Amino acid sequence: MRMRYKPWAEDYLKAHTDIVDIDGEHAKQLSQWFDQQQPLYIEIGSGRGQFITTIAAQHPEINFIAIEREKNVMVNILRDVIDQELTNLKLICNDAAELTDYFEPHEVDRIFLNFSDPWPKRRHTKRRLTYHTFLAIYKEILKEDGEIHFKTDNRGLFAYSLESMSQFGMYFTKINLNLHDEDDEDNIETEYERKFADKGSRIYRMEARFHQS
Amino acid sequence: MRMRYKPWAEDYLKAHTDIVDIDGEHAKQLSQWFDQQQPLYIEIGSGRGQFITTIAAQHPEINFIAIEREKNVMVNILRDVIDQELTNLKLICNDAAELTDYFEPHEVDRIFLNFSDPWPKRRHTKRRLTYHTFLAIYKEILKEDGEIHFKTDNRGLFAYSLESMSQFGMYFTKINLNLHDEDDEDNIETEYERKFADKGSRIYRMEARFHQS
Ligand SMILES: C[S@@+](CC[C@H](N)C(=O)[O-])C[C@H]1O[C@@H](n2cnc3c(N)ncnc32)[C@H](O)[C@@H]1O
Ligand SMILES: C[S@@+](CC[C@H](N)C(=O)[O-])C[C@H]1O[C@@H](n2cnc3c(N)ncnc32)[C@H](O)[C@@H]1O
Repeated sequence: MRMRYKPWAEDYLKAHTDIVDIDGEHAKQLSQWFDQQQPLYIEIGSGRGQFITTIAAQHPEINFIAIEREKNVMVNILRDVIDQELTNLKLICNDAAELTDYFEPHEVDRIFLNFSDPWPKRRHTKRRLTYHTFLAIYKEILKEDGEIHFKTDNRGLFAYSLESMSQFGMYFTKINLNLHDEDDEDNIETEYERKFADKGSRIYRMEARFHQS
Repeated sequence: MRMRYKPWAEDYLKAHTDIVDIDGEHAKQLSQWFDQQQPLYIEIGSGRGQFITTIAAQHPEINFIAIEREKNVMVNILRDVIDQELTNLKLICNDAAELTDYFEPHEVDRIFLNFSDPWPKRRHTKRRLTYHTFLAIYKEILKEDGEIHFKTDNRGLFAYSLESMSQFGMYFTKINLNLHDEDDEDNIETEYERKFADKGSRIYRMEARFHQS
C-alpha cells in the first residue's frame, strides 16, 4: 500500500475514539461500542476501506470492525465512516497479531481477508496472514461455525493458504479459481481487486471453516 | 476418451493375465503378482497409459498398477508393457468403485489421479473420482502417510476436489495453480495434459494426505 506521510493522521484518529480504537481503549469491550447487539464481521488489513464501508452500508443488521495497522490509510476509512454516518462500523488501528487482546473467545462471526500482503519470500512466511500463528488467533476469536472469506490476486499466496489452512484443520466450503470469470452480483470489490482485475489478473476466492475436534 | 470399438481387445487382454487382471483373478493377492516386494503406486483412470508406463520405466524400485475400466484403451497400456518389458507395472481392468475388492487395507503408498473425467453437471457429482465415496475407498487402501497426487486442466473439478477432500479430512502438502508456468523437470506428462497444455489451458496440481484421527 503506497502511503504518503500524513502528520495530521494521528491527531485526526485520536479525535474520534468513538469510531476508532488506537490504544486498546475498547479491548474486550467491543460489544458496548456498538449501538446494536448483532452479528460481528471483521476485516483484517482493510487498506483504504472500500470493501468494509460498502458492505457495512449494505448490511445495517451486522456490526463490522476494520483492522488496519497503518494510521495513514486508516484515516481514509475514518473519513468515510463520518461522511456516511455508518454507526455499525468501527475501526481498530493495530496489528492482526494482537487481536486476542481485543476480542472475547468466539465473539466473531466472520473474518474477511482481502488481498493480504503476499510476502512471497520464504523467509517472510511467518508474516502471511494465513500462517498458522494467525490461524490460531482466528480460531480463538471466531465462533465455532464462523467463516473466513479470503480473496487475492496472488496465486502463490492462495496456494500457500490452501495448504496452510488445510494443514491446520480447516476445510473449504467454496472455492473460486477465477472469480471474475462469472458475474457475481454479490461480489464487493476492494481497491486492490479493481486494480488487479483491470490489469487482467485472475482473482481467487475461498470460504473456509475450522473442523471441530 | 474417444474410443474405437476393438472386438479383439477382450481376447488380447485375456491372453495376458500375467499382466492384466480382468476378472479379479489377482484380487487380494496383488503382491504375489510382482517379482519384487517394493512400494506400490497406483493410477486410477490411466487412459492410454503414457504417464504410468513412463513413470514405471523410470522407477524400477517401485511397483505400479494402472486401473482403467475401458478395455479398448487398456489394450494400449498392455501393448506398451509387453513392448518395453515392464515387469513392475500391472493392470486392473475395472471400475475405481471396486478397488477395495483388490487391495488389502493400507497396501498402497501413493494414488495418482490424472485428468479424471470432470463430470461438470451437479447431478453427476457422485461420479467424480474425488467424491467422498471414492475418498473413503482411497483412505481404506492407502497407507496412513500415503499421498494422492492429482492433476487436471479442469478448474471446476480442481476447486470441487479441494472442497471435497478438505471436508473429508484431507490436507494439502503441495498445490500448484499453474503447473506449466514454471519448468518442472520431474513432471511426467499425460496424453490429456499435452493436449490441453497445447491449447493454452492451465494445469492444476495438488498433493494431498489424510489427517490421522
Ligand atoms: C495489500 S493491502 C490490501 C488492502 C485492501 N484489503 C484491498 O483489498 O484493497 C494490505 C493491507 O493490510 C494491512 N496489513 C498487512 N498486514 C497487517 C497486519 N498484520 N495487521 C494489520 N494490518 C495489516 C496493510 O497495512 C495494508 O493496508
Ligand atoms: C479423461 S481420461 C484421462 C486419461 C489419462 N489419465 C490422461 O491424463 O491422459 C479419464 C480416464 O479415466 C477412466 N475412468 C473414468 N472413471 C473411471 C472409473 N470410475 N474407474 C476406472 N476408470 C475410470 C476413463 O475410462 C478414461 O480412460
